Amino acid sequence: MISFSNWGEWMRHALELSATIAFTLSGVMTAARSRLDAVGVYAVAFLTALGGGTLRDILLDLRPFFWVRHVEYLWGVLALSTVAMMFMRRRHFEPTEKAIQLPDALGLGLFAAVGVDLASAHGMPALVAVLMGVVTPVFGGVLRDIVCNQIPAAFSDHRPYALCAFLGGWVYLGLQALQTPDWLALSATVFFTAGLRMLALWRDWQLPIWRVDH
Amino acid sequence: MISFSNWGEWMRHALELSATIAFTLSGVMTAARSRLDAVGVYAVAFLTALGGGTLRDILLDLRPFFWVRHVEYLWGVLALSTVAMMFMRRRHFEPTEKAIQLPDALGLGLFAAVGVDLASAHGMPALVAVLMGVVTPVFGGVLRDIVCNQIPAAFSDHRPYALCAFLGGWVYLGLQALQTPDWLALSATVFFTAGLRMLALWRDWQLPIWRVDH
Amino acid sequence: MISFSNWGEWMRHALELSATIAFTLSGVMTAARSRLDAVGVYAVAFLTALGGGTLRDILLDLRPFFWVRHVEYLWGVLALSTVAMMFMRRRHFEPTEKAIQLPDALGLGLFAAVGVDLASAHGMPALVAVLMGVVTPVFGGVLRDIVCNQIPAAFSDHRPYALCAFLGGWVYLGLQALQTPDWLALSATVFFTAGLRMLALWRDWQLPIWRVDH
Repeated sequence: MISFSNWGEWMRHALELSATIAFTLSGVMTAARSRLDAVGVYAVAFLTALGGGTLRDILLDLRPFFWVRHVEYLWGVLALSTVAMMFMRRRHFEPTEKAIQLPDALGLGLFAAVGVDLASAHGMPALVAVLMGVVTPVFGGVLRDIVCNQIPAAFSDHRPYALCAFLGGWVYLGLQALQTPDWLALSATVFFTAGLRMLALWRDWQLPIWRVDH
Repeated sequence: MISFSNWGEWMRHALELSATIAFTLSGVMTAARSRLDAVGVYAVAFLTALGGGTLRDILLDLRPFFWVRHVEYLWGVLALSTVAMMFMRRRHFEPTEKAIQLPDALGLGLFAAVGVDLASAHGMPALVAVLMGVVTPVFGGVLRDIVCNQIPAAFSDHRPYALCAFLGGWVYLGLQALQTPDWLALSATVFFTAGLRMLALWRDWQLPIWRVDH
Repeated sequence: MISFSNWGEWMRHALELSATIAFTLSGVMTAARSRLDAVGVYAVAFLTALGGGTLRDILLDLRPFFWVRHVEYLWGVLALSTVAMMFMRRRHFEPTEKAIQLPDALGLGLFAAVGVDLASAHGMPALVAVLMGVVTPVFGGVLRDIVCNQIPAAFSDHRPYALCAFLGGWVYLGLQALQTPDWLALSATVFFTAGLRMLALWRDWQLPIWRVDH
């Protein structure tokens, strides 16, 4: 299990907080685009922010869920969604999406590392652990899109996202096998995953296209 | 845990039965509108009637599920769906939807109270318990709409539904904190939630509209 | 629990393998038709091949999942999807769909029997056990279609599929009650279910049509 000096703890909480804010806002905006009502906005915000970690905990049979041990996450998502509904306008969407790219990428790396770490601490084989590291950050957005009746963006926008978490998961496992200290393995995974994601966005990398037509 | 005099037990079973019938019929009608085949009608009827309570039990890690302890629910949904397929015509849909509004609203209140009660008996914090009280009656309909490839009505029709269960959940927790006898807390919650829902339908209340466009 | 002579074990593994290949390919082809990217193809292949058994294990509260005990399933799905993306073209889809009908039908029977057997070994009532036998082979395809934003084919194509598993489940329970040896009960169920499914496809049987319109 990840254990930290105070400084590591502090960094981890800061990353977790900023990623949860990014995930919540992405849920709120997708719900708004799909013309959901206020109840739908809250529901999709919850699913986006907490869905991936919850599925991971169900698959690993861990209880209580992280949002039961830390109810402040639920209150936070509730509060942030309310504020967003009060003040957010359509012209804010594009700048917000730009602004959450970095915290979202950092969250991708953090939740990948946390998912891999939890799964391997519970005795999962390497590939299963890495896939749990993919599920944790990615599945919330998948649920968000399913509820909004769209094909999940993570599966169809040809941008590397889950792939960065997949590669980051192997980096984390590799560092763990080399007995790297926890804080260093975590930092390196977050840095690697988020860096890869930002690079992919910046250089407009596309997943290899599968041409089935000829 | 809710415990009752015989009379309370009897009332609760009657409410549960009528609500399950209402949920099953709503599943059957949505499936028919989406042109599912007979297998699809059964599947959607099961999901609508039992999906919310099942998700609650998975989240609280409770086994066996209520429909394992009481298999008669499964047989009931199977039988009712069969009868509906034999005798129901499109011109029956609108009167049926009117007729199930009250049992559906009573079920909303009952399942909210039962969900909150179960969750707080298992040591969940207040907000988590209330959200379990929302999931129990609402999630079945959400699954129904997802399978029928629609945006869930509970998240997009601007009618207060989940909101009534949310408020009803707090009423139940408040009464419990005041050490109100179980049968009274339950009756008051059902009455409050169902009353609010029927009032909202009657007065055509809309959830506050979120204008993102200006 | 099913226990076998070496020969029964061997047959079961061969069936399981061919069914998993059939399910994976059906996931890959549906994902391609919905224009998912490479990550989406992998995700849908995993969901189709492993989703039904995973839901069964969650409902029965069994851990570790079969794909944790046998990680080779995950590697196999990963490898097969990669090969399919490299070599499969649109003109291969129709012949592939023909070719996987038989292994798919055999898998339908096998997974139905395994699901019923697991559930009744864990003390589930007969109807619950049979429904677990339906969920195991059918739910993967349901998830596949939901992610691809379609109404599940199993619920809307009017072809008997889940119904064959449902009937096969009762056959298995009946043979078990008659104390038929495991290998015989399993073989008979697979033969009955797959035979029914192939017959239904060959004779173009349709589920009874529910006419709601008059």
